[in-house]
Amino acid sequence: MISPTLGVCYYPEHWPEDWWETDARRMAEVGIRYVRIGEFAWSRLEPSPGDLRLDWMIRAMDVLGRHGLKVIVGTPTATPPRWMIDKHPDMLAVDKTGRRKGFGSRRHYDFSHLGYREDCARITRILAEALSSHPALAGWQTDNEYGCHGTTYSYSPAALDGFRLWLERKYGSIDALNVAWGNVFWSMEYNRFDQIELPNLLVTDAAPAHELDFRRYSSDQVADFNAVQYEILKSARPDLPVIHNFMSRYSEFDHFKLGETLDIGSWDSYPIGHLAKSDETAEHKALYLRQGDPDNAAFHHDLYRTVGHGRMWIMEQQPGPVNWADSNPDPLPGMARLWAWEAFAHGAEVVSYFRWRQAPFGQEQMHAGLLRPDSEPAPAYDEARQVADELKTLTFDGAIARGKVAVVFDYESEWAWEIQPQAKGFRHGDHVRGVYAAFRKHGLDVDVLPPTMSSFEGYDIVAIPALLAWTDALREAVANFDGYLLIGPRSGSKTANFAIPDRLGPDLGANLLDTKVARVDSLPEGIRVSVKGGGSTHIWREKIVGNAEVVMEDEEGEPVLVSQGKLFYLTASGDKALVQRVADYLIAEADTPVLQLPAGVRCRTRGRFRVYVNYGARAQTLTPSADEAGYVLGSAEIEAAGVSVAALAKAD
Amino acid sequence: MISPTLGVCYYPEHWPEDWWETDARRMAEVGIRYVRIGEFAWSRLEPSPGDLRLDWMIRAMDVLGRHGLKVIVGTPTATPPRWMIDKHPDMLAVDKTGRRKGFGSRRHYDFSHLGYREDCARITRILAEALSSHPALAGWQTDNEYGCHGTTYSYSPAALDGFRLWLERKYGSIDALNVAWGNVFWSMEYNRFDQIELPNLLVTDAAPAHELDFRRYSSDQVADFNAVQYEILKSARPDLPVIHNFMSRYSEFDHFKLGETLDIGSWDSYPIGHLAKSDETAEHKALYLRQGDPDNAAFHHDLYRTVGHGRMWIMEQQPGPVNWADSNPDPLPGMARLWAWEAFAHGAEVVSYFRWRQAPFGQEQMHAGLLRPDSEPAPAYDEARQVADELKTLTFDGAIARGKVAVVFDYESEWAWEIQPQAKGFRHGDHVRGVYAAFRKHGLDVDVLPPTMSSFEGYDIVAIPALLAWTDALREAVANFDGYLLIGPRSGSKTANFAIPDRLGPDLGANLLDTKVARVDSLPEGIRVSVKGGGSTHIWREKIVGNAEVVMEDEEGEPVLVSQGKLFYLTASGDKALVQRVADYLIAEADTPVLQLPAGVRCRTRGRFRVYVNYGARAQTLTPSADEAGYVLGSAEIEAAGVSVAALAKAD
Amino acid sequence: MISPTLGVCYYPEHWPEDWWETDARRMAEVGIRYVRIGEFAWSRLEPSPGDLRLDWMIRAMDVLGRHGLKVIVGTPTATPPRWMIDKHPDMLAVDKTGRRKGFGSRRHYDFSHLGYREDCARITRILAEALSSHPALAGWQTDNEYGCHGTTYSYSPAALDGFRLWLERKYGSIDALNVAWGNVFWSMEYNRFDQIELPNLLVTDAAPAHELDFRRYSSDQVADFNAVQYEILKSARPDLPVIHNFMSRYSEFDHFKLGETLDIGSWDSYPIGHLAKSDETAEHKALYLRQGDPDNAAFHHDLYRTVGHGRMWIMEQQPGPVNWADSNPDPLPGMARLWAWEAFAHGAEVVSYFRWRQAPFGQEQMHAGLLRPDSEPAPAYDEARQVADELKTLTFDGAIARGKVAVVFDYESEWAWEIQPQAKGFRHGDHVRGVYAAFRKHGLDVDVLPPTMSSFEGYDIVAIPALLAWTDALREAVANFDGYLLIGPRSGSKTANFAIPDRLGPDLGANLLDTKVARVDSLPEGIRVSVKGGGSTHIWREKIVGNAEVVMEDEEGEPVLVSQGKLFYLTASGDKALVQRVADYLIAEADTPVLQLPAGVRCRTRGRFRVYVNYGARAQTLTPSADEAGYVLGSAEIEAAGVSVAALAKAD
Ligand SMILES: [Zn+2]
Ligand SMILES: [Zn+2]
Ligand SMILES: [Zn+2]
Repeated sequence: MISPTLGVCYYPEHWPEDWWETDARRMAEVGIRYVRIGEFAWSRLEPSPGDLRLDWMIRAMDVLGRHGLKVIVGTPTATPPRWMIDKHPDMLAVDKTGRRKGFGSRRHYDFSHLGYREDCARITRILAEALSSHPALAGWQTDNEYGCHGTTYSYSPAALDGFRLWLERKYGSIDALNVAWGNVFWSMEYNRFDQIELPNLLVTDAAPAHELDFRRYSSDQVADFNAVQYEILKSARPDLPVIHNFMSRYSEFDHFKLGETLDIGSWDSYPIGHLAKSDETAEHKALYLRQGDPDNAAFHHDLYRTVGHGRMWIMEQQPGPVNWADSNPDPLPGMARLWAWEAFAHGAEVVSYFRWRQAPFGQEQMHAGLLRPDSEPAPAYDEARQVADELKTLTFDGAIARGKVAVVFDYESEWAWEIQPQAKGFRHGDHVRGVYAAFRKHGLDVDVLPPTMSSFEGYDIVAIPALLAWTDALREAVANFDGYLLIGPRSGSKTANFAIPDRLGPDLGANLLDTKVARVDSLPEGIRVSVKGGGSTHIWREKIVGNAEVVMEDEEGEPVLVSQGKLFYLTASGDKALVQRVADYLIAEADTPVLQLPAGVRCRTRGRFRVYVNYGARAQTLTPSADEAGYVLGSAEIEAAGVSVAALAKAD
Repeated sequence: MISPTLGVCYYPEHWPEDWWETDARRMAEVGIRYVRIGEFAWSRLEPSPGDLRLDWMIRAMDVLGRHGLKVIVGTPTATPPRWMIDKHPDMLAVDKTGRRKGFGSRRHYDFSHLGYREDCARITRILAEALSSHPALAGWQTDNEYGCHGTTYSYSPAALDGFRLWLERKYGSIDALNVAWGNVFWSMEYNRFDQIELPNLLVTDAAPAHELDFRRYSSDQVADFNAVQYEILKSARPDLPVIHNFMSRYSEFDHFKLGETLDIGSWDSYPIGHLAKSDETAEHKALYLRQGDPDNAAFHHDLYRTVGHGRMWIMEQQPGPVNWADSNPDPLPGMARLWAWEAFAHGAEVVSYFRWRQAPFGQEQMHAGLLRPDSEPAPAYDEARQVADELKTLTFDGAIARGKVAVVFDYESEWAWEIQPQAKGFRHGDHVRGVYAAFRKHGLDVDVLPPTMSSFEGYDIVAIPALLAWTDALREAVANFDGYLLIGPRSGSKTANFAIPDRLGPDLGANLLDTKVARVDSLPEGIRVSVKGGGSTHIWREKIVGNAEVVMEDEEGEPVLVSQGKLFYLTASGDKALVQRVADYLIAEADTPVLQLPAGVRCRTRGRFRVYVNYGARAQTLTPSADEAGYVLGSAEIEAAGVSVAALAKAD
Repeated sequence: MISPTLGVCYYPEHWPEDWWETDARRMAEVGIRYVRIGEFAWSRLEPSPGDLRLDWMIRAMDVLGRHGLKVIVGTPTATPPRWMIDKHPDMLAVDKTGRRKGFGSRRHYDFSHLGYREDCARITRILAEALSSHPALAGWQTDNEYGCHGTTYSYSPAALDGFRLWLERKYGSIDALNVAWGNVFWSMEYNRFDQIELPNLLVTDAAPAHELDFRRYSSDQVADFNAVQYEILKSARPDLPVIHNFMSRYSEFDHFKLGETLDIGSWDSYPIGHLAKSDETAEHKALYLRQGDPDNAAFHHDLYRTVGHGRMWIMEQQPGPVNWADSNPDPLPGMARLWAWEAFAHGAEVVSYFRWRQAPFGQEQMHAGLLRPDSEPAPAYDEARQVADELKTLTFDGAIARGKVAVVFDYESEWAWEIQPQAKGFRHGDHVRGVYAAFRKHGLDVDVLPPTMSSFEGYDIVAIPALLAWTDALREAVANFDGYLLIGPRSGSKTANFAIPDRLGPDLGANLLDTKVARVDSLPEGIRVSVKGGGSTHIWREKIVGNAEVVMEDEEGEPVLVSQGKLFYLTASGDKALVQRVADYLIAEADTPVLQLPAGVRCRTRGRFRVYVNYGARAQTLTPSADEAGYVLGSAEIEAAGVSVAALAKAD
């Protein structure tokens, strides 16, 4: 673990070599300690096949190192040079409509292409050999933003070959596959594995199990792709971390699985762009136009900290307007500072701004940096310096503690409900983030856990919403947990083969929960059913049978929340008011202490400190909590985009 | 004709053989008499080429027959097994964008592929030989939902070959085609038939006559495809009916033409899914969210009864939530009963629920059945039993009588206005259904007639809205009819070659109607022109010249309804209020007696009974009509989703 | 220059030859003087390769000439016959998704295909030889509506070959290209020109310089295509004009460059269809439903007059409802007259109605003509005759005078902001037309100038909004201009290589304007920032630094309009109110006299006359201006769709 510090993304290859020295000096002056380089530089490292030019990169690392900066070197595999396409014309991915996506931007490769994967191993080996002993080297980044621009799925011949092999390994016999997929339905039965096609360009929907297996296969290719580089980099320098920079609300591959060959989970945090591109309402987007969604960054900090085995970085932090949303507003003054503080509060070790200087050319020329293209400071330059100065006065020590509450996030469930929404707008992630935000509203720290947990010991409350299918381990974790559980809607409604379980959802033993989902009523946007006492259901309503106790019911008399001991089952998608009511109910049952937070304000407790951030566009006044001993940064008066840090009477 | 009774769709191949007996027994207990099987079972009937396994199907029929159930066997040609694609790789259809649609769902075949058509004949012959003497056999279904998922049109090499040949047969010489299509326009003249392409992937619109001929060609392929199976099945058992299950608002082929090789017209009625997927307004969809459009099922009953030469079944009846709309609401309690009663009132012989037991696997695992996946009864199970019980107390005898009113529905006109809307939103079907609903609102029974009528004798009122072109026969039927005629807008505005007729639309002799459409004013959504006295026009307004008498005119002084004797011509698309006014005007002129129906209530008279159904979400009170002699089912108080049946003083 | 007169588009090949005489006689009776023929007639001129049939066209010209009509002959190259595709199968263009667009409509050719270009030269030579000495011949039209249906861009092998060659010629070395495009970004560097692909079917955005060069290349192909025909036609008859008919709001190629091989700039004016297909608001579309946008035709008159070196025609004038918008309303009575008068006021020599008789067949059968399909007069027939009669009483002499105000329109800037909007909805043309309309609202005549101006001498005010990049010539014109300049937003924000300039935008010397754009704040639709004093900014807000004087600022204190001497810089996109305020401010500064125009009324002064037109749907009263000496047509009372012409005390 590194104590919170700043970093920056730097592209020495974009600037005259005689600018490097000044750049490095200014970085150090700002208080930056880490510099990521190299992840798009393949055409400069190997301008033609075998013509290796690593000298400039070593010189750049020399310069940076001289100024006390540590370097993260990115493998350049997200941008193979043009000559690579001459070598492997079939390495280009094919989209769902059957079209090859060509060279001329980035991420133009197919995860299933084993020849390209070998070339990635080769360049990684070359970098490891040339740079692993460089004194400035502090770690590696593999590739860049796996899956960005929808590149996880390819419908290429390479993918088809890989998929058939993967299926053969998984099922052993074609009969086993036919049974698992339910292929008797519509005479979809195969005679041989080589008859199976990718699930695109069909007349109507593929079998859901076919789709789900294709997603699993594709996800595995990304993990395998990363593993190749990980092995090489770790064998060169076992002591240095291998990191990947993930994205916001991106779920096309299983990040937990890929995290098995990473040492740190990092991600690229662009709160304003992420909100703009999200499917949040126009009203919500207007409210947080210049700040970003107040819970989204926090959620991903907590998610990727889990992916990273407790270690998390922000590899790219938005410093000003970006270029890739439809509209790209300027952040409120202070946001570049706020985002950094919030990240640290959630356990970030390094927050690295993207990028040092705005590039005047290329696709991202409208993306702000800490410097303008003319090398003058942009607003975030001073905000970064302020953060660096403030960090000197506060020491977060060690790893972040576990929260009182946890929510299970499952990539397969995201795929499952995309494949079979049944109710338009039903998404696993929406349920998970909704529950996360409801608990966080009371200042509770919430962990994001994978579905592979075998125990929930230590949590007061665990939520498992919209989960595709139980594993034996998870069912056992549920059975053995003595805290409060919030399960559903739709959790356990399928088997791993995407079929309805024999005893129907939620598919828990009657000793745990005597409830069966007999029927689903799915509703179009705009139709709501009020719940007695407040809130309403929409999108997804289950009609259940069984003997669990009814805690809440709707105006039609259908149970909405039922319980059996400490296990609660939610039968419907709810609006924010309902989800909050349910969270509040569980908090009260579990007797978990809460904080009072003004609108727009969020907090996270880490070690001896509680960090408050104000995402709102107006100032607020904090109510000090009994466990706090005054502010060590800011005060109870917290302005728009402000940060206040309270010291705790004793560390949590 | 069969007296009204129930059926169900059953997939013995989906369940362990030792469940069949119990299933059959329970079906019989419910009161079900007909069971459709087999239509997706090809991979079980012939798991590999030539390896025939009909034994299990015979055993299934044995079991069903033992419980007094009659069996309809579906030919499995909608789901050719995977090995068929190995045999005929080019049997896969090609979509409008030029992409082959592959194996992995259903309907993966091209109606133009003659090799596959021959394999369909082969399997049909095999079924006919093996099953036609089975005592439980009661009839056949050909294929399944021809055209579903947009499969009528294929832009494949097979379609291109077929189209060229079809054109050569139709036109004889390329010069004749050039003249018919108006190819002098834009130098589109061909030298040879083999230069003609399919009308897709063009720079801009194809000639409308080119498009229309392609639609006619494609429609003919579906009819030809059906005829092959019909001939085989009828020669095996001339006494058994051959049936096909059509769909709602599906018009890509001419069902009247296809009906020439059918004995019964059946259709698959999913009122809630159909409304969800329709282009009705959001307000209308919300009003009938759990009931479906109150006139849509009725319209199709009347349409397919005509297609079936007076015989009509519901081959698939929605029993609960479906899986294929964006959102799939649960029906109001009672709807599974109401829909059945309404179908019987419109002449249905069998109403067959889809399906017996919800399948826990495959694409339709969220589609309800009479049983849940765990074999417990779903709500429709009891509603079906109620219908079966009620039917015992009422005997509808014989064929349904002709209505007082008729409306002409023409598939070519649907195609024509899709090809050349001129006013966005102008659709033939909308006009036809609008007129249908306006007459039905007064309790009038309305027949749906094909454009091939040579006489309208016996009707009080006949409406011919939005008809592409007159045939000689139809023009003669119009001339000889002594009832009231409502024609237009746009009727007769083209020749059969999709050109404006020499004397302009409506192209009737001045002795019939001295009116010419001089100009068309087409209006974007939201723009309306009020009609003096009530209602308004929108979308399509014709400006006419001539000496017909003006009955209604708009605020700008343009004639809206004109008449000459008993022939009325409507010059515009109207909102509901205007269409109702026009219908009311004709009813008054024709002196046709009407009923008073509360909002949401509809009725149909059959034999000695008048069946009232309440599509509304609240109870209503019926006003008994003078020709009724009290209720034999229900009463004047009709609840939401309720059914009341009045006996007539004497049969109609 | 020809004194204002009428024309018509005629297709003798569509009608029996024995109708031609009557048609010609009636044209002459209406007062028509020019007839365009031939532009879609290739299949009749050359029904099979080399089989030339020009006799009928000569006979048609004979007939027309006998009635005193002058003929414009169109080269038929927009509609190559079907046999041409047999000869050049690869002449069909390929769309952005990689699909060849086939034969069956029009414009089915690729501008990059040199073989087809040679066949176009051949048919042009044949026409020139056969017709150039015909006494009725008055000029030529090349092809028809270059680029219509999105045909400027093709992604074909022919385009790829041409593009690579064009790049090699432009850059000389691949290294120069790599630098110019900024290819170091994302390792996009090429080793050879033959590695470069077209910028379609990529994983994400291409480099903006790559996109821009592809647009420049494609634009050049259109210009080269025209030049081939121009050379042939001019060498046959140097005295006759070569004309092309452009379109509304079409900017995929640089019309100024193409205009270098034209003698007259003509365009096809369909005001109602153009408004319907534009992205104006629904409210605006409803207001001018039957008139068209009141400034759009005027803007294009002024634009194409510049393209045509001072000479401008309307080659196709809407006469009634068209067929190609979603809905096609009938024009207000009088509009066919109003549009002609307005065109003449803006310098049109000939206004040629499209078309003589509505064709009853083919794609445009619903497009009105002066005659109905049954040869009866349509409403525009009489309006045309009225215009012809009125023209006899008024003589506009000579060329139109320069306006007081000018606005620079730049095709490259249109492409640039489409390639890189950064703010959704930012379009060069919107800014140009917005400024144009704001000045025109006061009755000021506004010229539309190309970005290649080297002097603005003679103008009071020149506006250069949203200009991609300065050329040396234009920067010098700005520096030397002693009138008032309105520049920005976004003007000069890039170099010609689509990079941010070293000194940032607006990239003018501090002696001209001491302002730098430090940051861009781009806003989604619906978000506005009020400007102190009225109006608001939206979409695009620049945050500037420097010492220019602040004239207007927004509620957040950001400068909106700054000035340095007579140069004004606008930092933001504004709503109509703000743009009007800015225009008014400059008018006041420049002390330019204005007129008072009622709502919906517009005017243009030409020679001794000022032509008022009323686009509004209600009558208005004009306020006579001091420089007027009464009305020579109409009066101060101007009805809806009315025209009034005032005589000036002395010519302008
Ligand atoms: Zn990305
Ligand atoms: Zn279907
Ligand atoms: Zn056009």
